Amino acid sequence: MAERKATNIKWQDSQVKRDEREKILGQRGCVAWLTGLPGSGKTTIAQHVEQKLIHRGVACYVLDGDNVRHGLNEDLGFSQEDRQENIRRISEVAKLFADAAVVTLTAFISPYRDDRFKARKIAPEGRFFEVFVDTPLDECKKRDPKGHYKKAEEGIIKNFTGVNAPYEPPDIPELRITTMGSTPEESADQVIAFLEEQGILPGAAASSGSTA
Amino acid sequence: MAERKATNIKWQDSQVKRDEREKILGQRGCVAWLTGLPGSGKTTIAQHVEQKLIHRGVACYVLDGDNVRHGLNEDLGFSQEDRQENIRRISEVAKLFADAAVVTLTAFISPYRDDRFKARKIAPEGRFFEVFVDTPLDECKKRDPKGHYKKAEEGIIKNFTGVNAPYEPPDIPELRITTMGSTPEESADQVIAFLEEQGILPGAAASSGSTA
Repeated sequence: MAERKATNIKWQDSQVKRDEREKILGQRGCVAWLTGLPGSGKTTIAQHVEQKLIHRGVACYVLDGDNVRHGLNEDLGFSQEDRQENIRRISEVAKLFADAAVVTLTAFISPYRDDRFKARKIAPEGRFFEVFVDTPLDECKKRDPKGHYKKAEEGIIKNFTGVNAPYEPPDIPELRITTMGSTPEESADQVIAFLEEQGILPGAAASSGSTA
Repeated sequence: MAERKATNIKWQDSQVKRDEREKILGQRGCVAWLTGLPGSGKTTIAQHVEQKLIHRGVACYVLDGDNVRHGLNEDLGFSQEDRQENIRRISEVAKLFADAAVVTLTAFISPYRDDRFKARKIAPEGRFFEVFVDTPLDECKKRDPKGHYKKAEEGIIKNFTGVNAPYEPPDIPELRITTMGSTPEESADQVIAFLEEQGILPGAAASSGSTA
């Protein structure tokens, strides 16, 4: 790679660096990686964060099952190998979005610690935040928004996280969200407050001055 | 998919629609798909467009070999099958970026008409623009910025587009750029003027009023 760039000297290097991009656009890219059991509330919380940030004028985007599983990763199933490839590709796409200065949220079960660790390594340094949506299994089963827990317990769905496939909770997530007794909107506010503390977003009240 | 959404009614639908996102952020997403022979100038032109748009405050991003081939598509080689999968994944990622209201440029040889057609079908409707970077083969060979033509002609590189692999030029690209006798910056200005005409970007002088 170094060689390829070095031989390319006849062309002026016009590539925009992330620092420059962020300074001019007045916002910082990051990956907020939401992980948790099926039905824990990841996508809903992520979408609320997105809606709030867009309304603040911050470019923000959610990668989730709906826009990734049926497109980029439509060739992948639910074996352990395919799940790993699923998460690997999402990690790479999230990295590109973060590089583009977009506040990026991913909402995938991502049950394996090792896969989440790899996602962290791929992301721009210091811009990856693991957000554990820590809803107890019993509560997820009760909510069962897609009816998948029921089907898994009846043996109709195999390899379903929480029933017949493992979930490895984060040891030290950057943020842990307890959804019991909170609305998705309140959970979203927690994520936003966290991103403000990290200097990714300017504070709503008193700006931290960390972004333009 | 319809069923999955329908069963999800306990949760408030908070998903931001592209229209709403674009209106608030004051910019429109699109995919400007640059295609052309190796060494035709795709990446350089795309990077100049990006630099100019970022300096106008427009969120813009270039997908090219450097950030895709060594990341998302690092598992793919250069067989016809792998090239197709390479372009398929890029098409899907470009779609996501366009959905996020980012002016997205892709800079890949993308030698097959059929693959480019699929990229068009995947992109948001009316937001895909095929940009043919139409530099004659002889000129590309002369420039040979990476020394790949030389290696291909010596048989060191196989399946190299323009030497021992086909390139199918677009029949009716939305924009055709002749790079002979122009600087990359002038070519970039052509792309930007085109995006203004299409209502993707507000005009630099007299705003078309098509974006906020």
